[in-house]
Amino acid sequence: MNAPNALRRRVHDILEREDPDDPTTAWVFRGIVALIVVNVVAAILLTDDRFRHAFPYDFRMIEVISLVVFGGEYLLRLWSCVESPRLRGRNPLQARLSWAMSPAAIVDLAALLPFAIMHLYPTDIRALALVRLLRFFKLARYSPGLASLLEAVRAERHALLACFVVMCGGIVIFATAMYELEGPAQPDKFGSIPLAMWWAVVTITTVGYGDVVPLSGAGRIVAGLTMIAGIFLLALPVGIVASSFIEVIRRRHFMVTWGMVARVPMFADLDAATLAEIIPRLKARAADAGQVIVPRGRMPRAVFFVISGAIVIETAMGTRRLAAGSAFGETREDDHPHLHALVRAIEETRLLVLDSDDLDSLVAAVPGLAGRLAGVSVYEVG
Amino acid sequence: MNAPNALRRRVHDILEREDPDDPTTAWVFRGIVALIVVNVVAAILLTDDRFRHAFPYDFRMIEVISLVVFGGEYLLRLWSCVESPRLRGRNPLQARLSWAMSPAAIVDLAALLPFAIMHLYPTDIRALALVRLLRFFKLARYSPGLASLLEAVRAERHALLACFVVMCGGIVIFATAMYELEGPAQPDKFGSIPLAMWWAVVTITTVGYGDVVPLSGAGRIVAGLTMIAGIFLLALPVGIVASSFIEVIRRRHFMVTWGMVARVPMFADLDAATLAEIIPRLKARAADAGQVIVPRGRMPRAVFFVISGAIVIETAMGTRRLAAGSAFGETREDDHPHLHALVRAIEETRLLVLDSDDLDSLVAAVPGLAGRLAGVSVYEVG
Amino acid sequence: MNAPNALRRRVHDILEREDPDDPTTAWVFRGIVALIVVNVVAAILLTDDRFRHAFPYDFRMIEVISLVVFGGEYLLRLWSCVESPRLRGRNPLQARLSWAMSPAAIVDLAALLPFAIMHLYPTDIRALALVRLLRFFKLARYSPGLASLLEAVRAERHALLACFVVMCGGIVIFATAMYELEGPAQPDKFGSIPLAMWWAVVTITTVGYGDVVPLSGAGRIVAGLTMIAGIFLLALPVGIVASSFIEVIRRRHFMVTWGMVARVPMFADLDAATLAEIIPRLKARAADAGQVIVPRGRMPRAVFFVISGAIVIETAMGTRRLAAGSAFGETREDDHPHLHALVRAIEETRLLVLDSDDLDSLVAAVPGLAGRLAGVSVYEVG
Amino acid sequence: MNAPNALRRRVHDILEREDPDDPTTAWVFRGIVALIVVNVVAAILLTDDRFRHAFPYDFRMIEVISLVVFGGEYLLRLWSCVESPRLRGRNPLQARLSWAMSPAAIVDLAALLPFAIMHLYPTDIRALALVRLLRFFKLARYSPGLASLLEAVRAERHALLACFVVMCGGIVIFATAMYELEGPAQPDKFGSIPLAMWWAVVTITTVGYGDVVPLSGAGRIVAGLTMIAGIFLLALPVGIVASSFIEVIRRRHFMVTWGMVARVPMFADLDAATLAEIIPRLKARAADAGQVIVPRGRMPRAVFFVISGAIVIETAMGTRRLAAGSAFGETREDDHPHLHALVRAIEETRLLVLDSDDLDSLVAAVPGLAGRLAGVSVYEVG
Repeated sequence: MNAPNALRRRVHDILEREDPDDPTTAWVFRGIVALIVVNVVAAILLTDDRFRHAFPYDFRMIEVISLVVFGGEYLLRLWSCVESPRLRGRNPLQARLSWAMSPAAIVDLAALLPFAIMHLYPTDIRALALVRLLRFFKLARYSPGLASLLEAVRAERHALLACFVVMCGGIVIFATAMYELEGPAQPDKFGSIPLAMWWAVVTITTVGYGDVVPLSGAGRIVAGLTMIAGIFLLALPVGIVASSFIEVIRRRHFMVTWGMVARVPMFADLDAATLAEIIPRLKARAADAGQVIVPRGRMPRAVFFVISGAIVIETAMGTRRLAAGSAFGETREDDHPHLHALVRAIEETRLLVLDSDDLDSLVAAVPGLAGRLAGVSVYEVG
Repeated sequence: MNAPNALRRRVHDILEREDPDDPTTAWVFRGIVALIVVNVVAAILLTDDRFRHAFPYDFRMIEVISLVVFGGEYLLRLWSCVESPRLRGRNPLQARLSWAMSPAAIVDLAALLPFAIMHLYPTDIRALALVRLLRFFKLARYSPGLASLLEAVRAERHALLACFVVMCGGIVIFATAMYELEGPAQPDKFGSIPLAMWWAVVTITTVGYGDVVPLSGAGRIVAGLTMIAGIFLLALPVGIVASSFIEVIRRRHFMVTWGMVARVPMFADLDAATLAEIIPRLKARAADAGQVIVPRGRMPRAVFFVISGAIVIETAMGTRRLAAGSAFGETREDDHPHLHALVRAIEETRLLVLDSDDLDSLVAAVPGLAGRLAGVSVYEVG
Repeated sequence: MNAPNALRRRVHDILEREDPDDPTTAWVFRGIVALIVVNVVAAILLTDDRFRHAFPYDFRMIEVISLVVFGGEYLLRLWSCVESPRLRGRNPLQARLSWAMSPAAIVDLAALLPFAIMHLYPTDIRALALVRLLRFFKLARYSPGLASLLEAVRAERHALLACFVVMCGGIVIFATAMYELEGPAQPDKFGSIPLAMWWAVVTITTVGYGDVVPLSGAGRIVAGLTMIAGIFLLALPVGIVASSFIEVIRRRHFMVTWGMVARVPMFADLDAATLAEIIPRLKARAADAGQVIVPRGRMPRAVFFVISGAIVIETAMGTRRLAAGSAFGETREDDHPHLHALVRAIEETRLLVLDSDDLDSLVAAVPGLAGRLAGVSVYEVG
Repeated sequence: MNAPNALRRRVHDILEREDPDDPTTAWVFRGIVALIVVNVVAAILLTDDRFRHAFPYDFRMIEVISLVVFGGEYLLRLWSCVESPRLRGRNPLQARLSWAMSPAAIVDLAALLPFAIMHLYPTDIRALALVRLLRFFKLARYSPGLASLLEAVRAERHALLACFVVMCGGIVIFATAMYELEGPAQPDKFGSIPLAMWWAVVTITTVGYGDVVPLSGAGRIVAGLTMIAGIFLLALPVGIVASSFIEVIRRRHFMVTWGMVARVPMFADLDAATLAEIIPRLKARAADAGQVIVPRGRMPRAVFFVISGAIVIETAMGTRRLAAGSAFGETREDDHPHLHALVRAIEETRLLVLDSDDLDSLVAAVPGLAGRLAGVSVYEVG
């Protein structure tokens, strides 16, 4: 690998946060997130006349800095994207075009272009606010929380759709009842079902503005039922999203990225299609210094890849230290099921884990893999 | 089976969504749901004078189309219902009468008849709105979410009733306290317990319209306690409904229908009473292409029926493919408990599962079943 | 047992709901609950002048009926309480005095006495409403839901107290902040911390009446933080009460009463002190007709007492039916751990279960029990 | 240990609540908590002119008493802190300086100093209120609930930050939409994004004051979506905090303090650094009188230290009683895995538990420990 390639690789790894613990990566990441936050806050404050008139030059400076930084970031990403394992095996032009068409690249461009347009054709405040807030979506690319939330919502989309249908049904039914009961007395507030639906949604979500309120006895009884129904309807998405989100967020202390997998020596020369086969079957795991990864006598059938940090394997025959890039585990079935090895992290360590079932299906899917995994000794010790 | 019967069978399977993956079924289903939604939206908007005057002809067209579609649907269902395994063994007239008396058929008719009546005797807007929204309940028949919610509520009805009693008790107690404290000062708002109960329900559900608010210090202290009690009372149904609904919705990725069971070859010639015995003991399960259904060495005592899709069974002796209509599993107890077979779906597959305990009780209940199940070889291999 | 004693025993069993499935017990229970509900509704409506003037005679009739029924109930309970296993071994006068001093008896009397007083000294409407609503607490005695809620609250009282302290802390801190920020501008609404606390409790519980609202920018920022804090504080009791209540309500499909235990033949001649030792160690369990109680090959070390209904035990050697009053189970340890018996309910059945750990400690606590339990054969089959 | 040291040790144990069951400790604790509560309530009421003028002398008396008690408490803590195992091995001056710099000591001083200042320079009411409420934070030191809540929040800080980002994003997006839609019509309420954000936060948290309400149809549709989004966003922190808090609060019936560990004879002569190694690996456990601690035949590989109360170990060979200060357990692996001992508490007992994995890592970390633990016989019975 020659010098420019090494630099390009480094730039790629920093911008894609391949190793979030790397100090440069961490500082670049913090800097970009800070600039996005500053931009969003500025876009919000700019819609207030007092702020706009009080600090006209500060706002312009933010825009110039943002143009330089976000523009430079876009160009660096375009240059370095050819290092991505996902685009491995394509020629640079193809790789760059393919990247520029990806949703993330379009968000990056969308956050950038309006700038130029804004300076060429100064438009009105209201439109500018919208255009500036596009940069908010740039933040989503850096937020594992948002990604986890979307994953949780996706996993339970059928249940959530059912909730939404039930809630809409409740709103329509209660709105119709109030239209019949309160409509004649308060025609400006309950005179049509769409008007009554405004009351129903405000009530069923327990927001309760109080701008529309039933006055008759019958209307108040129906309203009481609406409120109690609201609490029950509210219970459904709460339970579903909460339990799903907790599961997702606990599982993903960190995300499995293309870069991590590509850096595992055993997978280094595999092409993009094979990597795409492997990635969804790997689970990420993190361990603090001193934490036990595999307790004595409870060794599962699995292969562990050390991505960063270091671990020790303690057996009756001695202790062995494994650094990043190593692999250990048990690939044969029912052999030595109670081997007395204890695996412990000695630094903050990240691992990728390939479990029993995924091991079987992966060995079936990737032809040469069985041979490679045979090289992983039983817990790497004699 | 002659041609009209084959057509009638096909119409029945489409309308009852026996195979939700069938393209015609999917499109018919989407069409009817879309038309119901259009109808409900139209019924809502019609109560607003501006909409009614702006699009008079559009609303009439929707009604004519709905009359034709829902009318045709009703007639087709009436014609094809004799194919239902639930009505197997009755003569066509009996079967049709039995179907026409079922709740689902009455909802279908209720969604249809008002139409005709409406055109014969044009009544006032307010009554029409109610009549038109009856069609909303037609949607319930197509919504597995609503069915799951009802099942969840049914499963926890005792707990929910207890919640409701506790909530009513809280409302009465706090309303009485406020009637004593604020009644003399604000007789129009807290002058009787029913009036104070309006305040209490608005407060305890945390809706808080603000139309009725305590003014004295003592009243505000009681109101604060009411709000805090409200949060605790709110916690009860949330916890109960949420946990129960999650369980139901996870279990029922799809529902076990009469048609599915009737199409399993082993059950094909059983009468309706025996099918009614079998259905509640079957569990539905879905697997994506590539997903492991039975992991190696963890074979349960159960019988699996492949309803759609296809699976492979991998053993040391080779691999075997099973298509829809096949059955596999282990019916004998404690034999080969760790047989090394791996069962994997190779397409999107739906299965019915008969578990250990249900197997025993079903064999006891259905005389000839034991013999039939003996034909299911141990994982169909060797 | 002579005739009056048999009648007294029957009256006692009905009033204490010893067998909730007994038809007479069920009707007496429903009748008393209905009368309490009628009384509470009447007490509520009576505070409204229109109702009071519209139906003066109906209200009086309810009162006369209630006096007769609740009075009769009190006297019957006083007469029959000597049959209670809890008071076994005392002379009738002691037993009746002891019962009359119990909280439940005082609630019964409190629901009764005000009546007489009310008729002797007609007081004002407001005081009467309070006195009449005392009968609401009578309902608590008949509501297993309320008992479960209280048990759930009791089990988590430390956690709930912590929540309450945190919530009070939040209210004080946010109220102080608003008193500093909004106090000078809105002295009538935020002019002292107690006034600001009214705003804080309305906001933190997300009730949001809107009668007190911050107007300054700084005030609105603090208010926004209060609302977000409110959602987090709200999460705590919701999670705690909900999970605890679900556990309690699932465990207690029905309650273990003194009567149930006293009717188990093995415990029939034990004194009250020994019964008090046994009751908390028994778990209640209900099974529908056909439900498997002990699956084949998964026999726990436990003793089961059939309280009502009937069960069958199926083994390789045949099937045996056990009716109410029987006991079965496994008291020796590690014997025949995989005995192939299947226990199934053949009617709606209630059982009491004595688990492994409780068995040990109970045998240690009650001297003669080990010998009695030895009479329980291994699943009652040879 | 000479007399002053014994007294100093006693004072230290009382103030640090080393043994919460000790009657003197309990009374001192209740007294200080009560005085803090009285102070906070007084500080709150003092901001109301009527209270201040009605009871001028009472408020002054509270201040004098508080000065004496809190001042005395500070001096006693400063004097006795040298007894803390955490500061073991330092000379008294060093120990006292080290303690005086700890956050807890600074809170104690902060609660004290303002007093003196207040009497020297009588300032305005508003500032005094703030200064007085500083004492509220003193309460935090005595509240295990607050500590648990902070621990729960810390454990899920990544998930909560993600929630907060998502919530802020939702507020900004919906506020921008409303600024565009309602801004022109209601410039004083939606005329800038900061103004619209006030509406958005009030709506998304379901507080719903009703001071700012959309009037147009489009605005109301967006508001409806905001409310429904609010319920979903609300679900996230509820689920996360609740599940985490329940876990923390169930685990910590009581906290492992330095004093407890120092009083275990086996650890008595270890230095502060070694104790700091041991404490995080110990788990606290409480048992009521009669509760089974280790069920028969399910003996884990762990060491138990009896801190207070007493237990009995029942084996086939007899029963043995262990009092506070004793240790029992199983340190060797796979020996007698089903030894039939039953361990039961005979009083209210507190134990510290060292589990299998922690045992291994602790023996590795603390050189002499293996030898000490060898002295713990297998369940202390021959």
